[in-house]
Amino acid sequence: MDLAAQAAKAKAFRALHHRPRILLLANAWDVASARIMEEAGVSAVATTSAGVAFALGYPDGQKISRHEMLGVVARIAHKVNLPVTADMEAGYGNRPEDAALTAEGVIKTGAVGMNLEDGTGDSQHRLADLSLQREKILAVREIAARLEVPLVLNARTDVYLAQVGPPETRFDETVRRLTAFRDAGADCLFAPGVRDTQVIQRLVRELRHPVNILGGPGSPSVPELQKLGVARVSLGSSAMRATLGLVRRIAQEVEGPGTYNALEDAPSHAEVNHLMAREV
Amino acid sequence: MDLAAQAAKAKAFRALHHRPRILLLANAWDVASARIMEEAGVSAVATTSAGVAFALGYPDGQKISRHEMLGVVARIAHKVNLPVTADMEAGYGNRPEDAALTAEGVIKTGAVGMNLEDGTGDSQHRLADLSLQREKILAVREIAARLEVPLVLNARTDVYLAQVGPPETRFDETVRRLTAFRDAGADCLFAPGVRDTQVIQRLVRELRHPVNILGGPGSPSVPELQKLGVARVSLGSSAMRATLGLVRRIAQEVEGPGTYNALEDAPSHAEVNHLMAREV
Repeated sequence: MDLAAQAAKAKAFRALHHRPRILLLANAWDVASARIMEEAGVSAVATTSAGVAFALGYPDGQKISRHEMLGVVARIAHKVNLPVTADMEAGYGNRPEDAALTAEGVIKTGAVGMNLEDGTGDSQHRLADLSLQREKILAVREIAARLEVPLVLNARTDVYLAQVGPPETRFDETVRRLTAFRDAGADCLFAPGVRDTQVIQRLVRELRHPVNILGGPGSPSVPELQKLGVARVSLGSSAMRATLGLVRRIAQEVEGPGTYNALEDAPSHAEVNHLMAREV
Repeated sequence: MDLAAQAAKAKAFRALHHRPRILLLANAWDVASARIMEEAGVSAVATTSAGVAFALGYPDGQKISRHEMLGVVARIAHKVNLPVTADMEAGYGNRPEDAALTAEGVIKTGAVGMNLEDGTGDSQHRLADLSLQREKILAVREIAARLEVPLVLNARTDVYLAQVGPPETRFDETVRRLTAFRDAGADCLFAPGVRDTQVIQRLVRELRHPVNILGGPGSPSVPELQKLGVARVSLGSSAMRATLGLVRRIAQEVEGPGTYNALEDAPSHAEVNHLMAREV
């Protein structure tokens, strides 16, 4: 894809954050999952960094290298027509330059969006300093501007997900961080771990900017999220983990009674082959 | 793994083909699927070439390169303790040297078994000439002997799977081919597409050698296959395809009613993270 086409695709993807209708992302971890989601009618494909890491043999949390993560993003972006947004964890490095390198890599894959989180994986210091995280976001904006691809940046804070600070402080800290990310140029603000309807509604009102909420069991349904004013819903690693649950049931069934009921709903080899053979 | 340890592992894996109890292989396509199968208690991990190809964005049938296929086999073999056997399609090339190169690559990944098929993917000439296929098997045996790793070779004929020749000729042609493969040094003989109980029983009796049958919906159960004298059962790409069916249901549910029921049985992030973090 040439950069002009990629820029147009990024703009169209950003516009999907500003419709009355909520933007539904399904999170893929390989080309097959991305293609079947595309066929099922979602509006965009997000990657799940945890799912990609698991598939390649790593635990979650930046144990995988930037290079390997970008390799999977590139495979997916080359094989679907939908906009692809890449979950790039904390940008694979502590410096703004690391985040810029990561964003440059994302743009080179053909993806048009990127997640950047402030979780550090460090149990002593679980969130990046706000000033550093702002610098990272500014660095992403700068490289995207230089490359003339307006990468759609989904800036995430892990205050709720990592349960940072006393519970009664989390809402204000989330707003403080996400407001700073918005002002640094983030296109969408992501607060995973938030499931309470009232908290979601307050976040949307305070931030006055597109908000991404994680869907899944225990979260409000997609229509409920839309009513609350949420701009974007994604599924994180849950679909990938659900497939592992199915694989476990299949293995336990053949190992136990030796039957194949859990395999009954598999699409045929011919159907999947056809899905994968389609040219982009 | 050093070659002596790998040789011992290959011998132990071969021995699993000669027990009263049938050998159950589950077919993985990435590290996560391999690990969850290992945890579920299967005796060995096979790869599915179709599943690996789909995950990486290719249709089945040697569209993926030998190098990429070996890359996935290596990732899996490095991350599970069970014996791993690699589905290497027709060996990625028409010459015996190609099959030898492929077998050498498999041994270098740490895997201890390999599938080699006679299907060509050519609609005019759907099976390799028997003499050529014998040469390929001999070439695999020779390189394995030279490297001193007794790779467990599962030799496959696609007579039934590709529906080659008039139906009444397929049994005899299958026996003719698999007998030749056995005599060339194959450790196990694989006839995918065979589901009929009587045909399976006749194959086992005629071949007097370990036989691999593909399990799955429409096939006899694992205990039934064991009663028929089948030495080994594998699942091909069916588990991988079943996960794609689940991903489709998840995407359709969130896109439709916007609920998350199909995600209910997903193992938690913490559980999968723990599974992937375990050292081999």
